[in-house]
Amino acid sequence: MIVVGELINSTRKRIKEAMQGKDSEYIKSLAEKQDRAGADFIDVNAGAFVDDEIEKLEWAIEQVQSVTKKPLAIDSPRGEAIKRGLKLHRNGKPMINSITKETERWKEVLPIALEHESYILGLCIDDRGIPDDASTRFKIARSIIEDLMKAGKRFEDIAIDPITTPLSVNTKYGLTVLQTIKLLREEYPGLKIITGLSNISFGLPARKQINRAFLVACMVHGLNGALIDPLDQVLMSMMRATEALLDKDPYCSGYLKAYRAGLVVKD
Amino acid sequence: MIVVGELINSTRKRIKEAMQGKDSEYIKSLAEKQDRAGADFIDVNAGAFVDDEIEKLEWAIEQVQSVTKKPLAIDSPRGEAIKRGLKLHRNGKPMINSITKETERWKEVLPIALEHESYILGLCIDDRGIPDDASTRFKIARSIIEDLMKAGKRFEDIAIDPITTPLSVNTKYGLTVLQTIKLLREEYPGLKIITGLSNISFGLPARKQINRAFLVACMVHGLNGALIDPLDQVLMSMMRATEALLDKDPYCSGYLKAYRAGLVVKD
Repeated sequence: MIVVGELINSTRKRIKEAMQGKDSEYIKSLAEKQDRAGADFIDVNAGAFVDDEIEKLEWAIEQVQSVTKKPLAIDSPRGEAIKRGLKLHRNGKPMINSITKETERWKEVLPIALEHESYILGLCIDDRGIPDDASTRFKIARSIIEDLMKAGKRFEDIAIDPITTPLSVNTKYGLTVLQTIKLLREEYPGLKIITGLSNISFGLPARKQINRAFLVACMVHGLNGALIDPLDQVLMSMMRATEALLDKDPYCSGYLKAYRAGLVVKD
Repeated sequence: MIVVGELINSTRKRIKEAMQGKDSEYIKSLAEKQDRAGADFIDVNAGAFVDDEIEKLEWAIEQVQSVTKKPLAIDSPRGEAIKRGLKLHRNGKPMINSITKETERWKEVLPIALEHESYILGLCIDDRGIPDDASTRFKIARSIIEDLMKAGKRFEDIAIDPITTPLSVNTKYGLTVLQTIKLLREEYPGLKIITGLSNISFGLPARKQINRAFLVACMVHGLNGALIDPLDQVLMSMMRATEALLDKDPYCSGYLKAYRAGLVVKD
């Protein structure tokens, strides 16, 4: 599983305050903790700042890179912000989070993705918005993959997000994501499929339980990456358990190693 | 989901002692707690007593029935024990746990199952043992279902256990169970499919995490019943979350109701 640590996101109140007040210790400690907990990428998002997103993003990226060697996911819908973020990026291959098939966004982000050695996450959204059904999401994903490859991006550098939306809005939304993952996995055995899980539980109580169950369910259908809170030890433990259950962890050695390192918890 | 509370099982040391010492308070409290936590059946097993299983089973059944109106799962491989247990059974329709396609056991248990209005759980085992592959398990299940129905049992009263064995013995065993469930669900949309989950984690650390993930994974493929510890609140919470995720809980009302009743926990 590819774990993208989601915590440094300005839509979270505490993060917004830290970015506002330049509380570098807080940002650094979250970056470091996510790294240690097993994040493969550290997501950085300053999108809640309308006027000075770029300045805040650049500042946050510098803080994060001062404490971790993990690559970052540069998280913005705006080409200019992504561009500036990539320019500062130092360690490994960054992930662009994200591109969509919305005409303007595609035009804006594509050249940046081609210019930089990077992974790119494509969301199943086009000018009509987020489709309710899996087959339309799949079609958007396919067009993203095909068009990125035609433009020169390598298949291995492309990831798709089937888009998780709240169950509290429509109880079919869980199945839509599962079905989209299934269609993608059947068509593209090696594809990186990554989603932000926690949206699923928005508006419902005991969100952690829903997020955990959803992670497992998505993995069963072929999800191999997630934008999650890597500090949620139960969630991370269950992720590792699921890899073993699905026979993706020979001799359960990854699970056992994580347990010995304290990364799989008992309760 | 059909929840069979698994705790009153003499293979557990503390239960064996309680049965040995006629500690009725302990047995009663476990029955009551499992009932309140949402068990649909209370399993009672005295199989660890070689010579006096029947006496111990009868005693335990009486204790359990003195505190709960839930039906019981009479858990024994021995026809005589099942027969005596059923004779004492008072509330609702009991479950016979279990029958197999082993020649002797089939012959012994079948007439008892036909004589009593009861559910019957059929394990995917025949004279060759537990098959390693899903398609052979499926074939055994099909022959159990067909032969039980030919003998006069109704389809609604039949449940199948795909048989969970430890991942620590073979990392393919999780997939075997998932695949068996999938085959059964495709062939029999209304079938009761129930398994004892916790075997999956035998021999591995942090067993709860594996059991939780496995419950969700099995539900994704169509499991609709489980022999579990209903006092594991996280496990039960995740079970309810998964029902909602799979759109089997209109408006998430079951989940919300359970949350308000304290049966879905936050962490």
